[in-house]
Amino acid sequence: MAAWSSSPSLRHLLLLRPRLPLGPTCLAGSFSRRHVHSRRRRLFSSASSSTLTHGDAASAHVDGDGVVDVNPPRGTRDFPPEEMRLRTWLFDQFREVSRLMAFEEVDFPVLESEALFIRKAGEEITQQLYNFEDKGGRRVVLRPEITPSLARLVIKQGKSVSLPLKWFTIGQCWRYERMTRGRRREHYQWNMDIFGVPKVQAEAELLQAIVLLFQRLGIPSSDVGIRVSSRKVLQAVLNMYSIPEHLFTEVCVIVDKLGKLTREEIEKELMSTGLSSEAVQGIIEVLSLKSLSKLEEVLGSGVEAVADLKKLFSFAEQYGYADWICFDASVVRGLAYYTGIVFEAFDREGKLRAICGGGRYDRLLSTFGSEDIPACGFGFGDAVIVELLKEKGLLPDMPRQIDDIVFPLDEELEGPASSIASSLRKKGRAVDLVEDKRLKWVFKHAERINASRLILVGNSEWERGMVRVKILSTREEFEVKAGELE
Amino acid sequence: MAAWSSSPSLRHLLLLRPRLPLGPTCLAGSFSRRHVHSRRRRLFSSASSSTLTHGDAASAHVDGDGVVDVNPPRGTRDFPPEEMRLRTWLFDQFREVSRLMAFEEVDFPVLESEALFIRKAGEEITQQLYNFEDKGGRRVVLRPEITPSLARLVIKQGKSVSLPLKWFTIGQCWRYERMTRGRRREHYQWNMDIFGVPKVQAEAELLQAIVLLFQRLGIPSSDVGIRVSSRKVLQAVLNMYSIPEHLFTEVCVIVDKLGKLTREEIEKELMSTGLSSEAVQGIIEVLSLKSLSKLEEVLGSGVEAVADLKKLFSFAEQYGYADWICFDASVVRGLAYYTGIVFEAFDREGKLRAICGGGRYDRLLSTFGSEDIPACGFGFGDAVIVELLKEKGLLPDMPRQIDDIVFPLDEELEGPASSIASSLRKKGRAVDLVEDKRLKWVFKHAERINASRLILVGNSEWERGMVRVKILSTREEFEVKAGELE
Repeated sequence: MAAWSSSPSLRHLLLLRPRLPLGPTCLAGSFSRRHVHSRRRRLFSSASSSTLTHGDAASAHVDGDGVVDVNPPRGTRDFPPEEMRLRTWLFDQFREVSRLMAFEEVDFPVLESEALFIRKAGEEITQQLYNFEDKGGRRVVLRPEITPSLARLVIKQGKSVSLPLKWFTIGQCWRYERMTRGRRREHYQWNMDIFGVPKVQAEAELLQAIVLLFQRLGIPSSDVGIRVSSRKVLQAVLNMYSIPEHLFTEVCVIVDKLGKLTREEIEKELMSTGLSSEAVQGIIEVLSLKSLSKLEEVLGSGVEAVADLKKLFSFAEQYGYADWICFDASVVRGLAYYTGIVFEAFDREGKLRAICGGGRYDRLLSTFGSEDIPACGFGFGDAVIVELLKEKGLLPDMPRQIDDIVFPLDEELEGPASSIASSLRKKGRAVDLVEDKRLKWVFKHAERINASRLILVGNSEWERGMVRVKILSTREEFEVKAGELE
Repeated sequence: MAAWSSSPSLRHLLLLRPRLPLGPTCLAGSFSRRHVHSRRRRLFSSASSSTLTHGDAASAHVDGDGVVDVNPPRGTRDFPPEEMRLRTWLFDQFREVSRLMAFEEVDFPVLESEALFIRKAGEEITQQLYNFEDKGGRRVVLRPEITPSLARLVIKQGKSVSLPLKWFTIGQCWRYERMTRGRRREHYQWNMDIFGVPKVQAEAELLQAIVLLFQRLGIPSSDVGIRVSSRKVLQAVLNMYSIPEHLFTEVCVIVDKLGKLTREEIEKELMSTGLSSEAVQGIIEVLSLKSLSKLEEVLGSGVEAVADLKKLFSFAEQYGYADWICFDASVVRGLAYYTGIVFEAFDREGKLRAICGGGRYDRLLSTFGSEDIPACGFGFGDAVIVELLKEKGLLPDMPRQIDDIVFPLDEELEGPASSIASSLRKKGRAVDLVEDKRLKWVFKHAERINASRLILVGNSEWERGMVRVKILSTREEFEVKAGELE
């Protein structure tokens, strides 16, 4: 009940800072779809993990005195007004870019059947499912990502819709890890997906959306880039060494850990799938390529991977975002279902994890028993981008904004004050009706919430059907007939 | 891939109809906070319920052939574009009214600690918790309502915030029932809550918000009303019969079932708490009162309940919504924590369940081990209101709306087309870039998505740096220099 500090922007920043996922602790605590999450997983032995689980269970939500823990469940966030304004602003940017790109919004239950997410490639995302059995004995999951739900709905809509579909969604995703240290268990994710376009033109559209977003947020291409490759690069290498098709996904998931595990660990994991050491060396060498012409030299120009990538980079020129993207063969992405172009946005200083990631997944629908439809998309989390904006000083100041405060100076005038508030609201004005406060508090309050006007209902004026209006920016004061307030 | 029907509005309605919760099945299948949900609960014997559970488990989400069920988990909804537009429109109305009332938006995790919702009054809401144990052994729940989270955050914010707080939120709520028949397990709810105002002025504000919403939706007071009473009415009756304080909540929860159970069943339940049959008769008689003056006669004018209600009805006159509200002593609401004014909106034809409901809960915070703060609020679900709008023909037609379609007539012109789409988007236009289709399809598509312009990139024009523009409303066609497109 202590008053706010008098400067709204200062207060805003003070309140904002400790809660946003901006510190190094929270940095590790957020995650993004299609990005292998826990690069620190190996740091936790199973022993320490069980210790942490124990600590977890000990901090139960009701103590002996019946006092409820005021924090949300571990790893989850509340959004008090200041953080909610920031989130709404960010989501509005997501929505505006989606509108410009002519994508339609869709949504899904946050609770899905576990079957949608059961994949056998050893992805981290499927190892950290927030899953449980409901009372009907069914395996359900708080979704870790949204693509499978999108695919499910596409199949369900079936022939009633005409392809291509361009859909976006913004929703909460979950993961369960037993470790603690402020790692988050939920985040929000913006997804844009195109179903029904087999050509890289679709990926080119997705990349424009991402670049448009960065531009709207004020982030230049000198701060952020998008690494692009294709899983067909890896496919071509596997073909060169006659490695069987069924190992493809597994190899992708392992290779995605480059940079998180040591080269030796990666080699060991690859060898354990049965690859020859020659093939392993070949894979690792190709993945180190950062130039498309070098790739063409190694794989030959007839290879699909090279043709796709060249086409995509040529589109990038036409769209005008060529300076945002670069070829990097080491980009594979951690999700099992990607089949072609893959990409991820990164900060050029290299401080943060991937900002977003995505790619083509032409064969996901058949894993659900349906006919395949070519598709690609990306997921863009709400965590890393906010870290980056904060770092670059690009987080907007978002104070409250109210049109009018109506304040009766006397309890008997509460009725008339209500009537005035009511009629101003009907005219579209945002009105805060304040009662039982001192005038001094009201003035401070007006400053805090950035009110445009203060409307005082006092006895002497009201007897004449008048109210006193104060314009807070100019400190101008005058009387108006109550009925003539606009 | 079959084309849409050519009339967008017809298609919209056709697609909309079967999915919206409008039929009698779905009518029973939706629910609203602070409204005792399953008036049909007694219709299901435990035998039929276990049969249904069995059926539930049998329809597993993956069949023998690895085909994934394309439906979302039972009782939950997908939102394809048409339904999403409707939901967004409704939520925008919620948000706009909240803005007019100067409420701030907040949000909470959909997953909460079970402890927040454990209450012993026998409320239906706590008997249908969608709860489970997480892998850390903690009892968690998909929240059935949002008020406890709001209270939790108010406690957590503590003295850093100045009262009153006026907060709103829109979020998904869950319940778990073993029965089926299309009953829904999730819905979205708009909540508005005021913390720190002990007087009925706060309730008067909430009622204005509800009325403003109805007015925005085009619903007149001849179609909808708000029944108002106070739990202090029941409190006064209990005092008259010297019934111990600790029975208050339990009696409220039982009495709320009036109209759902028979009078005899209610009487039986009340007797079973230990009330005398005289007290039971007294309660039931008072609850039948529909006039405030009659209530005053029975309880006496010194009683708080009467003073509160008279004050509230006098405010209603000042706000200008007196014709929307009526006193009805039978309104008690089903949630345990209400302490004062309670209200619910209803359709005057009496076909639907409560549209929204709320009331004062001055003693909720102390049940969480904190100091109490006077509070009141309401929950307004997304289901019944849509039924009502549908019934009254007030659901708006919400077709897609796109500014431009850009279409290259030749594959070689895909680059220039991308460039044109890109530059139009940078100017703020919503642009659908279409490729690999026949011109006929493109024209139909333009009609379906309500495009304003069609921009054709053809060889002969492009050689001269021109594109062909067609204004779809007027069928006007002309050539423009590509660089001069606005």
